[in-house]
Amino acid sequence: MGEKVSNQQVILKDFVTGFPRESDFEVTTSTVSLKLPEWSEKGVLVKNQYLSCDPYMRILMHKADLSFPIDFFTPGSVIFGYGVAKVLESGDPNLKEGDLVWGITGWEEYSVIEDPQKLFKIHHSDVPLSYYTGILGMAGMTAYFGFYDVCCPKKGEYVFVSAASGAVGQLVGQFAKSLGCYVVGTAGTQQKIDLLKNKLGFDEAFNYKEESDLNAALKRHFPEGIDIYFENVGGKMLDAVLGNMRAYGRIAACGMISQYNLEKPDGVYNLLRIILQRIRVQGFEVFDYYHRYSEFLDAVLPLIRARKLTYVEDIADGLNAGPAALVGLFSGRNVGKQVVAVVPQS
Amino acid sequence: MGEKVSNQQVILKDFVTGFPRESDFEVTTSTVSLKLPEWSEKGVLVKNQYLSCDPYMRILMHKADLSFPIDFFTPGSVIFGYGVAKVLESGDPNLKEGDLVWGITGWEEYSVIEDPQKLFKIHHSDVPLSYYTGILGMAGMTAYFGFYDVCCPKKGEYVFVSAASGAVGQLVGQFAKSLGCYVVGTAGTQQKIDLLKNKLGFDEAFNYKEESDLNAALKRHFPEGIDIYFENVGGKMLDAVLGNMRAYGRIAACGMISQYNLEKPDGVYNLLRIILQRIRVQGFEVFDYYHRYSEFLDAVLPLIRARKLTYVEDIADGLNAGPAALVGLFSGRNVGKQVVAVVPQS
Repeated sequence: MGEKVSNQQVILKDFVTGFPRESDFEVTTSTVSLKLPEWSEKGVLVKNQYLSCDPYMRILMHKADLSFPIDFFTPGSVIFGYGVAKVLESGDPNLKEGDLVWGITGWEEYSVIEDPQKLFKIHHSDVPLSYYTGILGMAGMTAYFGFYDVCCPKKGEYVFVSAASGAVGQLVGQFAKSLGCYVVGTAGTQQKIDLLKNKLGFDEAFNYKEESDLNAALKRHFPEGIDIYFENVGGKMLDAVLGNMRAYGRIAACGMISQYNLEKPDGVYNLLRIILQRIRVQGFEVFDYYHRYSEFLDAVLPLIRARKLTYVEDIADGLNAGPAALVGLFSGRNVGKQVVAVVPQS
Repeated sequence: MGEKVSNQQVILKDFVTGFPRESDFEVTTSTVSLKLPEWSEKGVLVKNQYLSCDPYMRILMHKADLSFPIDFFTPGSVIFGYGVAKVLESGDPNLKEGDLVWGITGWEEYSVIEDPQKLFKIHHSDVPLSYYTGILGMAGMTAYFGFYDVCCPKKGEYVFVSAASGAVGQLVGQFAKSLGCYVVGTAGTQQKIDLLKNKLGFDEAFNYKEESDLNAALKRHFPEGIDIYFENVGGKMLDAVLGNMRAYGRIAACGMISQYNLEKPDGVYNLLRIILQRIRVQGFEVFDYYHRYSEFLDAVLPLIRARKLTYVEDIADGLNAGPAALVGLFSGRNVGKQVVAVVPQS
């Protein structure tokens, strides 16, 4: 038995219906032994540093859908997601005490990770560690492979990005600009619009909440139509985009955050356009690209170091602030990538 | 001036709202000179033999949508579509009197075709000439390239085809079977279901009009889910299929006949499945494959001659029967490919 320490944890109280609220979660404190338990001799014991707030986590707050072979959250148990952690004890020959890793971990101070082969070892710590929850982690790979592989972009094409200041969208826009595309983003506050135009280099941006007619807004920004849509929101925006796609357009279906809280999703009506304009709608999951992580790092790390790629983070301070940060994603409270620093930084 | 002859024509009376009716058309008789007019010195004068009834023609009955660079029908004028014709006089050096061609022509006995370079010359007449409106024409290429190119099929995959006994569907099913796929089709009458199972070699088929729950019907026929959906109908069927697609599934969006007569299309709700199952929805137009016609003929003609590919046609007798045949597509009256023989055969 190792030293006993307190372990603050974020617990899901019950399955969530509609928009998640802070009160759907409870921050509790248990104690934990700082030793890898016997039942997990091949696992690792880690101290979590940063946790990632990601829209897909909303889906895990539903009752498990047995047709999907993924782990849903369990009411009464600690929730989990992407995070950056330091290894305290390792039963895995590829990891040792002191190593930094990123991957799926618990929303708590200390976690036992039972399948450490799924973790990514962090070899470069000259960049902010929190980046491994975002630009150098799942979100970064989503943007990179989603844009370059799924969208098959060409110089000069018209690119539209929804949730454009978010963890993924802000990168898609910058990748598209670097390739010589014309890029318009949409987001839900003036602050985010300013960020897109003034800091992230988007050609144009508009606040969808201030547009009574999304179709008209798109026609205004894309009089020639849209070649590539990087889809993060779904629903009414997708419908409006379908009506404005150019021939041979591509839609990378990455996320549909506007739909996750609805009991019944919005209907989409403009699907005939898929045929008339020969559109490709491609759903993808970043896991399918994890074997190409080193290729991704080789491309993105130099851009970060040379300050050719910007990443806006919104860091919540401490696990106590975790539930608010997580549910804030769904009202757009975050500006940039939402991270939770497990240990308060202030 | 050449010999004057009577020229029976099918005229669209006015733009069509809702389901098209026979009374939306008028069959009239004018006279025509059997000589290429001076204003079309590079065109060809043809005598039409067979006309093709195709679902896309419904779209052309709307008022022109200027965002699509295609020709819509003009009220008061003769309608047009794919057909097989014999050249009577040619201003095109590649065509001569007596040649048989297929391509876009008028719904009338005699037509002047102004852009004959778009016509396909018929070199093989040991097969029924009417086949060039279907299996050896646009529908055949749609099925062939739509299935082999767009769907990227693999042996053993689960394939679902809607409007399965139609001009395209019956071929997709046979191509899929020949590749070793498991193929289920749907259609709207018992006669068509029998045809699919007993003549066209589908593994299973069901009458969608007798299913109160399309989702349940699909689960019954595809307990493992669907790898490939060849989409000819859209709307509620598409929605149900999305809920039953397997990971990495492909949907070839070829047509959405259920939607063409609606003022407002049906809403589709299951789009999140595109992401969760990494589905590719690919719209396509057969025109993009026209340059590969000889490759297609080389593949399909031998199969027809060896009777390894069956094609069910429904031939209406004479132009007078044309309007009923055309509108019959939308109530599913036709059994197999609907053709109009310009010259009555009985």
